[in-house]
Amino acid sequence: MDKWQHIYSVNQFTREDIKELCELAAQMRDAVKSEGRLDTLKSKVVALLFFEASTRTSCSFNAALLRLGAGVISVDVMSSSTKKGESVQDTLRTLACYCDAIIMRHPEKGIFQKTLPYLDGFNVSLISGGDGDGEHPTQALLDIFTIQTELGRLDNLTVTMCGDLKYGRTVHSLSQLLSLYQGITINYVSPDELKMPQELIEKINLGPNNVEQNFSDRLTEDILSKTDVLYVTRLQKERFASYDHTDTEMITKIHDIVNSHIITADTLKPLKSTGIVMHPLPRVLELHESVDSHRSCVYFKQMHYGMFMRMALLQKVLVK
Amino acid sequence: MDKWQHIYSVNQFTREDIKELCELAAQMRDAVKSEGRLDTLKSKVVALLFFEASTRTSCSFNAALLRLGAGVISVDVMSSSTKKGESVQDTLRTLACYCDAIIMRHPEKGIFQKTLPYLDGFNVSLISGGDGDGEHPTQALLDIFTIQTELGRLDNLTVTMCGDLKYGRTVHSLSQLLSLYQGITINYVSPDELKMPQELIEKINLGPNNVEQNFSDRLTEDILSKTDVLYVTRLQKERFASYDHTDTEMITKIHDIVNSHIITADTLKPLKSTGIVMHPLPRVLELHESVDSHRSCVYFKQMHYGMFMRMALLQKVLVK
Amino acid sequence: MDKWQHIYSVNQFTREDIKELCELAAQMRDAVKSEGRLDTLKSKVVALLFFEASTRTSCSFNAALLRLGAGVISVDVMSSSTKKGESVQDTLRTLACYCDAIIMRHPEKGIFQKTLPYLDGFNVSLISGGDGDGEHPTQALLDIFTIQTELGRLDNLTVTMCGDLKYGRTVHSLSQLLSLYQGITINYVSPDELKMPQELIEKINLGPNNVEQNFSDRLTEDILSKTDVLYVTRLQKERFASYDHTDTEMITKIHDIVNSHIITADTLKPLKSTGIVMHPLPRVLELHESVDSHRSCVYFKQMHYGMFMRMALLQKVLVK
Repeated sequence: MDKWQHIYSVNQFTREDIKELCELAAQMRDAVKSEGRLDTLKSKVVALLFFEASTRTSCSFNAALLRLGAGVISVDVMSSSTKKGESVQDTLRTLACYCDAIIMRHPEKGIFQKTLPYLDGFNVSLISGGDGDGEHPTQALLDIFTIQTELGRLDNLTVTMCGDLKYGRTVHSLSQLLSLYQGITINYVSPDELKMPQELIEKINLGPNNVEQNFSDRLTEDILSKTDVLYVTRLQKERFASYDHTDTEMITKIHDIVNSHIITADTLKPLKSTGIVMHPLPRVLELHESVDSHRSCVYFKQMHYGMFMRMALLQKVLVK
Repeated sequence: MDKWQHIYSVNQFTREDIKELCELAAQMRDAVKSEGRLDTLKSKVVALLFFEASTRTSCSFNAALLRLGAGVISVDVMSSSTKKGESVQDTLRTLACYCDAIIMRHPEKGIFQKTLPYLDGFNVSLISGGDGDGEHPTQALLDIFTIQTELGRLDNLTVTMCGDLKYGRTVHSLSQLLSLYQGITINYVSPDELKMPQELIEKINLGPNNVEQNFSDRLTEDILSKTDVLYVTRLQKERFASYDHTDTEMITKIHDIVNSHIITADTLKPLKSTGIVMHPLPRVLELHESVDSHRSCVYFKQMHYGMFMRMALLQKVLVK
Repeated sequence: MDKWQHIYSVNQFTREDIKELCELAAQMRDAVKSEGRLDTLKSKVVALLFFEASTRTSCSFNAALLRLGAGVISVDVMSSSTKKGESVQDTLRTLACYCDAIIMRHPEKGIFQKTLPYLDGFNVSLISGGDGDGEHPTQALLDIFTIQTELGRLDNLTVTMCGDLKYGRTVHSLSQLLSLYQGITINYVSPDELKMPQELIEKINLGPNNVEQNFSDRLTEDILSKTDVLYVTRLQKERFASYDHTDTEMITKIHDIVNSHIITADTLKPLKSTGIVMHPLPRVLELHESVDSHRSCVYFKQMHYGMFMRMALLQKVLVK
């Protein structure tokens, strides 16, 4: 099978693939700047099938598709046949009869590996927009493109990831992509309750490139002073397994944890002078508005880069 | 009035019309294969107005429109002016001011006949995507196109319809279209509670072509051995009028009925060797996954044909 | 800043601006009649972000964009990141990374003035589709275009506004635009509970053009006989502040008020012979179906004009 037919895991990509995608994304950026919209996908129709809430990912893919000239169908899942009891594989095969590609987000981890066999014989590409707390491969690609563009390199980086590392699929995908590179240090900063999954830590440890993985429950000055990329993720109170609305002591503790992880412009004083702050967004409390005008802030650019990377990927997948 | 201005009933079509539409649909199939998208409707804007849940019909029309180059507006009925108390005729007249055509699905049987007079003087085409348990004309057209393409003929056929024949608007429309042809036998197989409406049976009996109509509550080997087209429809427990969640005996009976109507690859052993299995989809339990790889399965192709037939119809309606 | 970058208030427009927009809208009307769709915005992608129910405004903008060749993204607010707690300014900045313009409707009055500073540095245009009971500038523009086209002038007019003048943002915007012209009389006809806000009345009084403002709680024969434009708006029972479902006397009174404000073809007998009846729609009870075929009815044309005016405005904003 063509390795570019379906996109569902960062493990599909080599360093060479990523280099090629980043170069293509940079070309897309220039092309959009001068032309607005292209027509390389003008013969294609693509469906957006989001079983979970999304603004950023669905709008980013939607804009990427429109800027490449494709026709886009947004499937309204809430009023769809899923309600009539249809299986995901039947819904996918339906859309495969109408469309050239399907972008899907689904709450179930591993749904892509499970449903792809059903698409054998259908002339369609399936692209992940996230599967539960599993992966979010295009987010990781756009994160990589952001780092490459802003810092000019992907080797020899210290990346500090903060927030909900347990359920945050974006950090799961990004840390795996980073492990393809040389001289990488990843600092995981999270409350005990929201630690990086042990299996992912081990997987990265077993990789060829000797990634250094460090753990902390606080974002210290020392960590910040060595950080090239501070990658912040959303911290949701409801994620704390032991959260109990009647347990006042616990609530106070959690509020303390969340508050002590709020990053402001002040927090960033010790940050390495060339360091950048990223966030997959949406943010809630963890990233204070004061950071928006800080020199390190690249999270709005990051969304911009995201559209170009998705254009690159769509082009790679759909134009043979 | 131009007979192709509005499409709301299979009774609008003659054998000649259907022949023309099938030929046009076959051309669309070839054109999509070679070009992906055409531009015959590039000057048109069309609205999708679905007051009832739909994936297949709305996505199929959406894809058909995009593949013909039209601009498509999906009206979000849930957040629309209907909530502010607007009548269907006012909503239609609104869309008629913006669009060249409106595809509507509505839960009320006969809504098209009721609202069409309000569109006098508006330069718009209204096309049915189904009206309650009334009709679903484009589904019937795509079913006919599937039979024509897969079996090479529309005369001299034995068609066996299973499942919910009482509320299933697709079988109501298809049986009427079939009555246009010579040498047709229709076997209706359903539980007593979900029989074909008597008025439709009589209407077909009064037709010029002497359709043979047979009735059974089980899909017997004898029926299967003579069947050219096995047309399966969804069997929903909630459709049983007498369904009572506290009546254990009744529940057991209904479960028995539903279970005894589940069609598997095994069930199909006696099927005529050239027989095909169709289903408008979505399916729930009544059509087992094992049939998907059976030689008779054409229900995925059927969706594919559906897009081409809708392209043909849209072209016929919108290009003068 | 370019005065045409963002559109959020009728106070942005001069008489000259409106003249230009009306001329452009008339050109759009001719172009759509002959071509169906143009391609002046073919390099653009525009998002529709409606935080409040809408059929007319969102579909009208959607059609206007498609008829100018733009790519359109309809953001599904119900399943969006707002649910994850994202602020409006973050949602806007997200869309600004993907799109050339954003059309927003929001329930909060003044939301545009509040969020625009956050878009500094983003290459995007923000256009209002209505802010709470604040303004609805594009509705006012289309109302003006309707009057200009139907009556041939904007000076020397008697405009009678009926219904909910307290919460009706369309009358708030229209009355301000009318105050740019000479010889204007505005009659406000509403129940006591739904009177025009005092601050708007005073603002118009302080204008340069000496608008005559009259008040009545009934639509009298005398008023109708002098009326060039009868502008009717929706009367919603739930708008009465004192509405109490258990207070039978109050309910009877409100029903009386609503019923006494229902306009039928009969009501219009004393209307000036050249007078026209407008309504922003949707209507509920206040405008009876019998008016639809009355010579004075222009509210369906009004929607048609609306699309052309929005095309004109989008062109003005997005093509430099």
